[in-house]
Amino acid sequence: MRPGGRTSRTRAAVFDAAMAELAEKGFAGTGMEKIAARAGVATSTVYRRWGGLTGLLQDLVDEITLDVQLTDAGPLAADLAQIARVILLLNRHPVHRPWMDAVVTAAVHDPAARQVLTRTIRRRIDGTAPIVARAAQRGEIPADTDGDEVIRMLAAPFYYRMYISGEPITDDLPDRVAAAVVAAVQAGTLRRTH
Amino acid sequence: MRPGGRTSRTRAAVFDAAMAELAEKGFAGTGMEKIAARAGVATSTVYRRWGGLTGLLQDLVDEITLDVQLTDAGPLAADLAQIARVILLLNRHPVHRPWMDAVVTAAVHDPAARQVLTRTIRRRIDGTAPIVARAAQRGEIPADTDGDEVIRMLAAPFYYRMYISGEPITDDLPDRVAAAVVAAVQAGTLRRTH
Repeated sequence: MRPGGRTSRTRAAVFDAAMAELAEKGFAGTGMEKIAARAGVATSTVYRRWGGLTGLLQDLVDEITLDVQLTDAGPLAADLAQIARVILLLNRHPVHRPWMDAVVTAAVHDPAARQVLTRTIRRRIDGTAPIVARAAQRGEIPADTDGDEVIRMLAAPFYYRMYISGEPITDDLPDRVAAAVVAAVQAGTLRRTH
Repeated sequence: MRPGGRTSRTRAAVFDAAMAELAEKGFAGTGMEKIAARAGVATSTVYRRWGGLTGLLQDLVDEITLDVQLTDAGPLAADLAQIARVILLLNRHPVHRPWMDAVVTAAVHDPAARQVLTRTIRRRIDGTAPIVARAAQRGEIPADTDGDEVIRMLAAPFYYRMYISGEPITDDLPDRVAAAVVAAVQAGTLRRTH
C-alpha cells in the first residue's frame, strides 16, 4: 500500500520535525516525544509507525538519499563526479551529517549501529554501481570492471577527510577523485577478482 | 637529551603495561593508575612524564608506527603496497586498533581528540609522501605528482572499510589499491594543483 492522504501528511510533518530537531540539537538531544510534539501528532503514532528513533532516522535518511536523481549519460568521469558531489552535499546536509556522525561513532562499539551503517552503505553502492556497469556497456571501460569497488574508491577519500584526517573537503575534490578513479579503471586495475 | 638507563627502562615498562591494559580492557577500561601499578612505577612518575592518558597513548602509538621501517626501492606500486600493508597491520594491532577506535569516536565531538588524530595522520603523510617524491625523481611518475594526495588515496579505502562500510579488509587489498593509485598517478590525475 502506498502512503497517501493523512498518512502521507503525517510522514512529511514528522520528517520535517525530525530534521529541525536534529539540525538544532544534534543526535543526542533529539527524542521521539519532542519530534512528535513539534509535528503535532501523538507520540504513540510515531512509535507505532517507526518503532523508535533509530527506525525513524533510518527512514528519513533513506528518503534524503533516495530523493537524489542521478543521471548516467557518460562519460564515466562526469557520472562519478556527480555521485561524489552528492556525497559532498550529504556531508554538509543539516540532518544527514549529524545522523552520520552519530551512527559512525556508535558503530565502533554497537553491533546494531554497525548493521544500520553497513546496510545503508550497501544500499548506496547497489544504487550507484549500475552507473559503472552502463559505462562498461558503452565500451568506455573494461567489461569486467568491479562496479562496487569503483564506488568504494570514489567515496573513500571523502569519508577519510570527514572522520580520519579531518582535512577540509574542497569543492574541486569530486572532479579530482572521479578523474583518478576513472584512470585506475581504464588501466584495468579495478576488475572483478572472482 | 635522549632517554637512556633508568628513564628508558621506565618508558619501556610503562609502554608494555599500557599495551597490555589496552589489549585486555580497551580504551574505556584503561587508566593511568592501573598502567603505573602494572609497570611497577609511581603514578606520579607517569603523570609527570606524559601529563595524562592521552599524551601517554599518543607517545605509545607514535612509537608503534615509527618502529616501522619502510623501503623505497621502487617500483612505486611495490612501495605503496608496503605502506598499505602497514595500515593493514596497524588495523589488526592489539593496541593500535583500540586506540584508533577510541580517537576516531572521540574526534567527532571532541576538538582535542580531533587535533590528536589530525596531527597523527599529518605525521604519517609527512613520513610516507617522500616515497612518492623519490618515484618522481626516478622518472617513474609525473614530476608534479601530489605525494600527500597519493597517500590519502592509498589509505582511504582501508579506513572506509574499518569505520564506514564495515566490509572486511582482505589480504589482497594492499596490492589492489596500490595498483589502482599508481595507475591514477601515471595518468597524471594526481598532480599538485597549487
